[in-house]
Amino acid sequence: MSISQSFATSISISSSSSAFFVPTNFSSRVQTVQFPAKPIGLCKCVAMPQEQETVFKTKVSRNANMGKLQAGYLFPEIARRRNAHLLKYPDAKVISLGIGDTTEPIPEVITSAMAKRSHALSTREGYSGYGAEQGEKPLRAAIASTFYSDFGIEDDDIFVSDGAKCDISRLQVVFGSNVTMAVQDPSYPAYVDSSVIMGQTGEFQKDVEKYGKIEYMRCTPENGFFPDLSTVSRTDIIFFCSPNNPTGSAATREQLTQLVEFAKNNGSIIVYDTAYALYMSDDNPRSIFEIPGAKEVAIETSSFSKYAGFTGVRLGWTVVPKQLLFSDGFPVAKDFNRIVCTCFNGASNIAQAGALACLSPEGLKAMYEVIGFYKENTDIIVETFNSLGFKVYGGKNAPYVWVHFPGQSSWDVFSEILEKTHVVTTPGSGFGPGGEGFIRVSAFGHRENVLEACRRFKQLYK
Amino acid sequence: MSISQSFATSISISSSSSAFFVPTNFSSRVQTVQFPAKPIGLCKCVAMPQEQETVFKTKVSRNANMGKLQAGYLFPEIARRRNAHLLKYPDAKVISLGIGDTTEPIPEVITSAMAKRSHALSTREGYSGYGAEQGEKPLRAAIASTFYSDFGIEDDDIFVSDGAKCDISRLQVVFGSNVTMAVQDPSYPAYVDSSVIMGQTGEFQKDVEKYGKIEYMRCTPENGFFPDLSTVSRTDIIFFCSPNNPTGSAATREQLTQLVEFAKNNGSIIVYDTAYALYMSDDNPRSIFEIPGAKEVAIETSSFSKYAGFTGVRLGWTVVPKQLLFSDGFPVAKDFNRIVCTCFNGASNIAQAGALACLSPEGLKAMYEVIGFYKENTDIIVETFNSLGFKVYGGKNAPYVWVHFPGQSSWDVFSEILEKTHVVTTPGSGFGPGGEGFIRVSAFGHRENVLEACRRFKQLYK
Repeated sequence: MSISQSFATSISISSSSSAFFVPTNFSSRVQTVQFPAKPIGLCKCVAMPQEQETVFKTKVSRNANMGKLQAGYLFPEIARRRNAHLLKYPDAKVISLGIGDTTEPIPEVITSAMAKRSHALSTREGYSGYGAEQGEKPLRAAIASTFYSDFGIEDDDIFVSDGAKCDISRLQVVFGSNVTMAVQDPSYPAYVDSSVIMGQTGEFQKDVEKYGKIEYMRCTPENGFFPDLSTVSRTDIIFFCSPNNPTGSAATREQLTQLVEFAKNNGSIIVYDTAYALYMSDDNPRSIFEIPGAKEVAIETSSFSKYAGFTGVRLGWTVVPKQLLFSDGFPVAKDFNRIVCTCFNGASNIAQAGALACLSPEGLKAMYEVIGFYKENTDIIVETFNSLGFKVYGGKNAPYVWVHFPGQSSWDVFSEILEKTHVVTTPGSGFGPGGEGFIRVSAFGHRENVLEACRRFKQLYK
Repeated sequence: MSISQSFATSISISSSSSAFFVPTNFSSRVQTVQFPAKPIGLCKCVAMPQEQETVFKTKVSRNANMGKLQAGYLFPEIARRRNAHLLKYPDAKVISLGIGDTTEPIPEVITSAMAKRSHALSTREGYSGYGAEQGEKPLRAAIASTFYSDFGIEDDDIFVSDGAKCDISRLQVVFGSNVTMAVQDPSYPAYVDSSVIMGQTGEFQKDVEKYGKIEYMRCTPENGFFPDLSTVSRTDIIFFCSPNNPTGSAATREQLTQLVEFAKNNGSIIVYDTAYALYMSDDNPRSIFEIPGAKEVAIETSSFSKYAGFTGVRLGWTVVPKQLLFSDGFPVAKDFNRIVCTCFNGASNIAQAGALACLSPEGLKAMYEVIGFYKENTDIIVETFNSLGFKVYGGKNAPYVWVHFPGQSSWDVFSEILEKTHVVTTPGSGFGPGGEGFIRVSAFGHRENVLEACRRFKQLYK
């Protein structure tokens, strides 16, 4: 192989909106190879260069579960629409309050620790190769003591990872294809999509916009965004996110006690997503493990993405208590550990150094300042929609504002807002049929962009 | 939640042997909850405190595929044995030529780029949140132009990841449970284990030390470590690693042409692992895409781990050419892209900055120097075992030396070497039944450790 010396010469630092520059031409380029080969027979009578379009296909069948998935994953689809909008209005100042991407710089106390660790890797004393797949011991200990010290969670219950989304899929691999699952409706799409991929579901049913075999737990303003568990069928797995993405609502201690009891009665496993716990203003539990007995029925997954702006740095964790057992008594943690060791190799050691710095006193203080900034954004957005007469939910305990447009299609509202204000939001129905008629507005943005977006909302809806 | 202010105060930099400090008490701790509850009835006649040992079990069945896996993943098992050895000989100077963990510092041109990117994340201009799941465009372009410029691979065929091992599992998720697979025997255990986890295999057959439904392609000194394809059954997927881990052998252009032809005739997909390609001394292909027609039948996965010491930093890539199609004409890349978007969120942006620096002229030069250092280690090890009269394979094109102990059990040899020389190696049978009677000696180590290990080998086998 010739190692070509031609390469991109500059280290390009992505802008905060780089998430939108996913290769949007992907579907079109791959579709070019999908055209059926030209019917060569018809051309035989004309002198033509050798037809090159006969496409070789392997004899490997496509995984039927992949075929069940609808369209693209939600956020790349929104990116696609944003890019299409930019083509149409090349001069528009588009503001993204869509995918929930952090925009504010990471506090220096944290990035300095990462830079220091980077430099140390060039020294013989500071170099480290493979780390423990489960994470570095000091970080596991710091996560346990910072977030779980009062709840009986031990250091070795903590599995450090490259993010909660990645851990959700690893958990699905642990569970396999024979489990049943429930999700809040609406919910973060990774739960449902990873379930489809693993073969836990039936086909997508277009009439109800649901996959077969998934229990959709409706969360609406009427039930305070907490499902009526008396109407929910038993499933093996219950995905539950609080504070919730997208509705922004947070479950109370009483509600979570109900949920744990429900899981216990059914012998279910709760996968509890607390990626937004530190945004909580109300005095609700910040961990499912605050609820007595939860260690026997729950896993918790979380992340530094929305606390420290680690959406690109990639660092999360999952708690699998040793008390959580499959029906045959086998510990779930032992199988999760096997997956982590076999399908993963640990989070980047540099990102782990950053996470450890996040949990120092200075790091925690700095992290709370960033969270406080985004919470101010949330207030601005909530106030704006309130002043315009909309019913607004969420916001108080989460960086998401859930705005009601009763009777309207979410995608229509999304498109109208984009077309008329150049602001990207997220259509509620992208989170499940229960999100229809809502728009999620993310509070992640520079202050002036949030203010400008709100000015435009006021213009549109005055 | 009380954010406890007690936390680990110092950022502990792991030693290069940190990989061995995986929680080796894991199995023992989780097994404590497996004891059956005491038969309470027998105690009723005595006044006793309330029995607390009744263990709550969920009603979720353990994934049967997980139950098929034998013991732990190979390398944590070796770590366990090493730790047991350390307990027995606390003063022994144990040398690890076992798991293939890099030991030499990362060149400064690379770590400086990572430190710079870290610092930039604290500035408004340099901050970036979610990146493209497929990797940053300049890095995808640099990988394509550095490694694949002559072979028709395009930037958007490259998927940047947190490592080849992680991508292997993601590929298995794409393929699903209904494919059949072949592996070289012996081979890197992640191929077989991830196949078992996905449910592609039958049970483990203890008599032959093989999983049902996997095609083991025997690679021995007799066939020059290249399988006799005329005796290999058709499978959907063929995992193939060259230069090979563990045998250190590299396939020639003629052999790879045969392999591609074999895949084409069978309509199979080759997953080609080139994590050691830059260690090649002979003039063999460094990419499967050097072989004409390979783009229609092959995926290639690789990594900076063994080139730049990125085992802890985590950065790899996988090439899925748009020409590779399932039997229904659907592009494999499109499904892989969906998995990358749904189950992964991109490699750490800091690690990506490091990878881009690896591919600068200075970075490439520095990387080759590190590789050259390990290749000198390899020569020392090969020479040692040669001088002792062993049949030695590998080494020339890979950082692994494959030493033959005909008629002996690999684990016995492993244990004897560890017991008598305090050197950790890897037993060949850990890579499959075809590795029985061999020991893999890794060339990753500080020079003085490699020299010392070789002195001890000479003492043991003189």
